[in-house]
Amino acid sequence: MAGARKLPTRDELSTWREFIETTERLRNMLTARLQHDTGLSPGDYAVLLALSEAPGSRVRSSELASLIGWERSRLSHHLGRMERRRLIRREECASDSRGAEVVLQPTGADAFHAATAPHLRAIRELFIDALTPEQLAAAGEIAAALQTHLSRPASNATERSRT
Amino acid sequence: MAGARKLPTRDELSTWREFIETTERLRNMLTARLQHDTGLSPGDYAVLLALSEAPGSRVRSSELASLIGWERSRLSHHLGRMERRRLIRREECASDSRGAEVVLQPTGADAFHAATAPHLRAIRELFIDALTPEQLAAAGEIAAALQTHLSRPASNATERSRT
Repeated sequence: MAGARKLPTRDELSTWREFIETTERLRNMLTARLQHDTGLSPGDYAVLLALSEAPGSRVRSSELASLIGWERSRLSHHLGRMERRRLIRREECASDSRGAEVVLQPTGADAFHAATAPHLRAIRELFIDALTPEQLAAAGEIAAALQTHLSRPASNATERSRT
Repeated sequence: MAGARKLPTRDELSTWREFIETTERLRNMLTARLQHDTGLSPGDYAVLLALSEAPGSRVRSSELASLIGWERSRLSHHLGRMERRRLIRREECASDSRGAEVVLQPTGADAFHAATAPHLRAIRELFIDALTPEQLAAAGEIAAALQTHLSRPASNATERSRT
């Protein structure tokens, strides 16, 4: 039956559940570590990282949303909170539809700089140290294969033609 | 303890970023599919799955929290919303510190059954179809290695000291 063929086998499903539950657990543990060690959330860190890597430490908010993979409205709320903590500053530009320019502030640069070593150490301890070099290479290949697959039009959330 | 560990190399860090960003993207796409196809959130689905697999379709809330890996307070708020939608029911038991019994309701059982095939199909299309059999096997090994590593007392030190 075509319909039955589309469903995963028991083994495939078991692998899926282990994979997704473990990556969720890893993410939660890293979030807790980041918050505990540095006072930054993963969203704070992603914004500060993107700004640190940008020329002049400034990025249009539309481009920032795309860089960190967030909806613009979610990012806007988050940037408001970061602005109140003086981590970043927004320079509005009424004539430009790409949104305000987001500019790294000295407090944000200091916070990012102080957070980098503890965060990288946590990534090593919780992820890299868990895997053999072969497993780490395989993790990279799996990520690349997923990335390619998910970027195909057929993977779109509302695509129903294959059912 | 592990304070003097060296930092990840550029290649290790690049693999990490691809891995964590891709699994996040996969999770977001599956969440969108689940919501679109079935009206259930991943949290709803996880609760209904755990109840469906439990003897008598009932589980103590403390055990449910542990099964789906959530804090009890977060689960409690979520169960309140599911109760208002008549997906589950809570039977309070003042003399038992393990919390209320959470009981699957007919509406919840129907919603879970209706959601299962579309959700499994989405898992096949977005995850399993993306990988070769060898990559899928490697994904299972990586998950198992991470799970073992993250369960070691040293990995939980921060989680414990946080409270």
